Formats: sequence, C-alpha cells, structure tokens
Amino acid sequence: MSEILYGRWAVLETLRAGRRTAQQLILAEGTEERGVIADILSAADERKLPVKKVPRRMVDDLAKGANHQGVALRVSAYPYAEIDAMLSRAEEAREKPFFLLLDQLQDPQNVGTLLRTADSVGVHGVIMQDKRGVSVTPAVVNASSGAVEHLLIAQVTNLVQAMRMLKENGVWLAGLDIGPNILPIDRADLNIPLGLVLGAEGEGIRRLVRDTCDMLVTLPMRGHVESLNVSTAGAVALYAAWQARSWQGWAHAERPK
Amino acid sequence: MSEILYGRWAVLETLRAGRRTAQQLILAEGTEERGVIADILSAADERKLPVKKVPRRMVDDLAKGANHQGVALRVSAYPYAEIDAMLSRAEEAREKPFFLLLDQLQDPQNVGTLLRTADSVGVHGVIMQDKRGVSVTPAVVNASSGAVEHLLIAQVTNLVQAMRMLKENGVWLAGLDIGPNILPIDRADLNIPLGLVLGAEGEGIRRLVRDTCDMLVTLPMRGHVESLNVSTAGAVALYAAWQARSWQGWAHAERPK
Repeated sequence: MSEILYGRWAVLETLRAGRRTAQQLILAEGTEERGVIADILSAADERKLPVKKVPRRMVDDLAKGANHQGVALRVSAYPYAEIDAMLSRAEEAREKPFFLLLDQLQDPQNVGTLLRTADSVGVHGVIMQDKRGVSVTPAVVNASSGAVEHLLIAQVTNLVQAMRMLKENGVWLAGLDIGPNILPIDRADLNIPLGLVLGAEGEGIRRLVRDTCDMLVTLPMRGHVESLNVSTAGAVALYAAWQARSWQGWAHAERPK
Repeated sequence: MSEILYGRWAVLETLRAGRRTAQQLILAEGTEERGVIADILSAADERKLPVKKVPRRMVDDLAKGANHQGVALRVSAYPYAEIDAMLSRAEEAREKPFFLLLDQLQDPQNVGTLLRTADSVGVHGVIMQDKRGVSVTPAVVNASSGAVEHLLIAQVTNLVQAMRMLKENGVWLAGLDIGPNILPIDRADLNIPLGLVLGAEGEGIRRLVRDTCDMLVTLPMRGHVESLNVSTAGAVALYAAWQARSWQGWAHAERPK
C-alpha cells in the first residue's frame, strides 16, 4: 500500500533514510527550487525517481489540506520494526537500552514532536500501542521533520505485554506521571536500561500500564496550569535520561574543547 | 479593544486570573456542561458574566476555524507588562531574576507551548519583540492552555535595547544556539540572575541579539535531524535552569518525603 508524505524535511529525510520505496516526487508548480527543495531534487535525481509538477491545488488535495510546503512524495507504507531489532541495536552500539513507550497518545503534532526529540537523544526504539492511539501517519512524519524515518518504531496490540517482554530483557520502566509523593526526575537513577513511558494527553498513563512500571517519576511544576504538554514533558524527561548517560553517542566533533 | 478567546483552558484561566475585563461568555449549543465547562460556567456566574448560547457554526466563525471546544470569551485586550514589574516580582519573591526572551518566533503553537512551560518553571517575565514576531493572540492564549494570563509578558520594539536594560540590572543573558564549540547546557552555571534567549524557528537568534548575549549554550543532539523544535529546546533549557535553582518555589506539599 502506498501513501503520500508531505513537507520538505519529511520528504528529504524519507529519501535520505531510504527505508521506504519511493514511487514519485510531486512538486507544486511555482515552488522555488532552492534550499531544502534543491536537496530533495538532487536526492530524487540520484535515485532516478520520477518528478511530477502539478498545480498547487492538487498538492493541497494530496496533503488533505495540511501545510505541505510545495512538496509531496508517494511512497510505500511505514516500515514498523520489531522490539528484538531495537534490543539488538542497543547491543551492537554497546549501550544500555533506551526506549520510549507511548500509551495511546492522540495528537499527531505531539507524537511527531516527541519522535523528533527521541531521535535527537538517540533512543534505540519507540513502542506504540496500535489501537486508540496515533500511528505513524503522514502528519506524524511531517511533525517529526522526518525523524521517524531514522527511528525504529514498533506498533503493538498490547502495550503491557510489550512492557513485560522488555522487563524480561532487563529493561526498567519509568512512567512519567503527575501527583504528590512521586520521585522528581532528577532524583531517579536513569543511567540504567530504561524505557520511559508516556501517557495520553489529558488522561495520562492507563492504570494497568502504570502498575506495570518499575517506578514513577515526575517533573516539578510551580505554575498555574496543571500540566505540561506531553511533548514538552516527554522531551524534558528524555533529555534528563540522556544527560544521566553523559550524552553518550554525542559526536565528538561537536563537543566543546 | 475587545477580542475573542477560545478553548476551554484558555477561557477558564482567563476568568481565574481576572486580569482582563470579561464581557461575554459564548457557548456552542449542545456543549456538555460538565468538567472544565462546568468550572467555566461557575466562574462566569461568580463574576455575573452574561452567558450566550449560539449555534456551533457561530463559534466556529468567532474562533476563525480554530478548535474552540465549544466555548469562547469576549474580553479586553491582553494586558502587557513592563520589565520593571518583572524585576519587582523577582525581588518581592526574593528570587534571582529568571526571564525568557523570544526573538521573533513565528508559530503561535510554539510560542503558546513555550509560555505554558515558562509558567510551569516560574519565570518572572517574558520579553518578546513586537515586530515580525508572534504577539499574544487568541491562538497563543489557547496553545498556552491559558498560562499567559498568569505570566508577565512585555512586548518591546527593540529586543537588544531590552537586553541591555536587563544587563544593567545584573541579569546575565544566555542564548540557546546550535553549533560546534558551544557550551552544553549542563556545563553552564544557570543559578544566576538569568535571561534565556530563544531565536526564531529555522533562523535561530539574530546576529546582534546573539552578540548581546553574555554566553551561548547548546543542547547536545545525536539524531539525524539537525535541530529540535524551538518549543522543545526551550523547554529543556528552561527546566535545566530551574533545576539549577533546586526547583525553587515548587510547592512543598508536592515534594516527595
């Protein structure tokens, strides 16, 4: 089954990652062929990908009204991964496993933003429940700026079962929660084989998922609004966990002397 | 001049904060009067605010097509603050000044999310450039879940001039930037009178603004995508700064024993 991706970074990173079969690049007439668009065209050229120029309104229709930035890509479906492949990725990198688990998140923008951050801190994999939650749709690919194309993401029918499987493999599960008497994130030891569990917007983590966690952690808050956006809270927690690993894998060239 | 706010939390927090004059509460017919809507109705009742029920399509028009969740509020304009008031707020709380400065951010969703986080970590004020950047529009109020109604926010014509004024008051300015040889955020001492400066999506901080900073800090990244969403990067940096202050002001009742 093919689908239509849109957005400059989404299209460019999909071509760069090369994990999907690209069938056709679609450009809106009048789109300036410079910057990221020029990079996309040269990536398409290398891959001998057919390019079609169409009226902007046709791209609007293909992107179902989303902000496509003049470019769309017809590709094969998103290649979901298996959890075993994620554990192997950690093992090959000789790193403690680092996972992100999403319990029925609803908003593609939140999920995309979170996945962009997950890529940025180098998680070995992301596990999402496949029912009643967002999957890796074109809107998510776009919101992630294409980061999902480089991530290993599994869709599971039963998140609790996946959590138990991770635990059998020595991974500790930390649920991000709100409430009194929960450990603040900076006091938890996160330099362990870790799965960070995030719950849905508004609802939080479901009870059985919470009960399956090995520990709960919280972010301090002193404001008037009762919670943070889940993509914000998740980003702060992901960075706290990566910092606990001393920014493992951060390219040496970029480290200050 | 009056404007129309929309969204459940935006409307509720605007009424709770009470800094604007509320003129009329507008409910879409068929909106269930429970949960946050019930809280809004009781806040409106306390304030003897007229409530009008109208067809949902009218609320769609008032909210210009945004997701209004069935509720809108006609209120006076957003009450911008002066920088002096922010400095006084810090002084009264006997806290080191903690500011957020936004250099021409473009996206209301990003700005709203950032302001929600700024409220959550207890900044004393936010300073935004008034030209070529987002101001506190109803879309920003909604994206912040109403947090802006509790924040002191200044709009200035010249951000660099405001930065110089802060420096004269002993505030150090840290610009969040990307690049080699910039200090990672966890190595900077952020437990000082601090203004965190964020640049626009894509563009980053403008040169003169960057040159006016006392230091530049960066977030490590190891992924494939070259940057983080500015609301994500800003949230991680705001939390790092608040953590450096030992979560000052976090309600004791919520601290774990």
